[in-house]
Amino acid sequence: MNQERRDRLRDAAMAVLAEAGGRGLTHRAVDSGADVPPGTAKNYFPTRDALLRAVAERCLEQYRELAARSAGGPPPADREALTAMLGALLADVAGPGRSRLLAYLELQAEAARRPWLSAVLDPIAAADFAGLEAAQLAAGLPVTRERAATVTLALHAAIPHLLADGPATLAAAGLDDPVRFARNLLAAVYPEAGAAGD
Amino acid sequence: MNQERRDRLRDAAMAVLAEAGGRGLTHRAVDSGADVPPGTAKNYFPTRDALLRAVAERCLEQYRELAARSAGGPPPADREALTAMLGALLADVAGPGRSRLLAYLELQAEAARRPWLSAVLDPIAAADFAGLEAAQLAAGLPVTRERAATVTLALHAAIPHLLADGPATLAAAGLDDPVRFARNLLAAVYPEAGAAGD
Repeated sequence: MNQERRDRLRDAAMAVLAEAGGRGLTHRAVDSGADVPPGTAKNYFPTRDALLRAVAERCLEQYRELAARSAGGPPPADREALTAMLGALLADVAGPGRSRLLAYLELQAEAARRPWLSAVLDPIAAADFAGLEAAQLAAGLPVTRERAATVTLALHAAIPHLLADGPATLAAAGLDDPVRFARNLLAAVYPEAGAAGD
Repeated sequence: MNQERRDRLRDAAMAVLAEAGGRGLTHRAVDSGADVPPGTAKNYFPTRDALLRAVAERCLEQYRELAARSAGGPPPADREALTAMLGALLADVAGPGRSRLLAYLELQAEAARRPWLSAVLDPIAAADFAGLEAAQLAAGLPVTRERAATVTLALHAAIPHLLADGPATLAAAGLDDPVRFARNLLAAVYPEAGAAGD
């Protein structure tokens, strides 16, 4: 087994799941997406569940790479820096992150029927709560666990709404402008001095 | 075409999508789930997209029925009543609402690839923001559009986390107890007097 080929197959499986859905995730589609001879994907990932696990593990790795890269830079020093960071996270959903997040959405639905898959995804989501709480603390906001979780949940909910791109929903959620959305979300949970009683 | 049979097929299609995922949604599975002769589902809903549309329209109808039933009762008169209402909504996810919400999760992922499906779902999600904002107003909370949307988004994000049932995620989100979650969510967005500066 060749690690470079294995990674190429996993990336292809993620792209197939994102672009064709659970129904399109077949060994043949993964071979074709990875541009390898027929039968290769089946050799590395013999069952459909093995394909799903490969995508989930690739999601987990990509999440950790993103988190490590983000931890390598300075943490958000204040509300404005955190607003920019969250706005960039949301802008990524419609941009380079679309395929990964759409694959994640498919995995999440599959996880409701497959406890083993839920167990693979569980640490990704849990780490996201911890990482975003740390970012809110770094920004100097008056964090409580509940406030931090509220911000994280609002960001999680934003993802499928952004991917589905329904105009009435985006307007109702305030998601038509990601940076304004991030600013308003922080203002809703952490009102600025003098704005608490309005 | 017989309306009773049509409804039965639509309910079966929703259950199949929920329990077997997008991959399992075939005409044969719907015939079998509805206990009708082979070929019946194909007769009513000739394509797979027609099946998806049938499930989406059934979701929309069920959402409207739920909203109408809820509007028939008294609106939540205060914070405690709203807490109970939101806690009940979340408890429903793991109970009678599981099939509908799991089907909705599948549709949401499909909608990211199908603009026509996104257009069917868009009014459901948008109505949810309006309905939950009205409930927060009825409860006498100091509503702004952004605060109300934050509460609604946190509830939307809770659904896939509850369906996937990952223990670390539920603990991190505070979702291990739906009523306590609802109380804490309202406290995070609408701090009670004297608690604003903690």
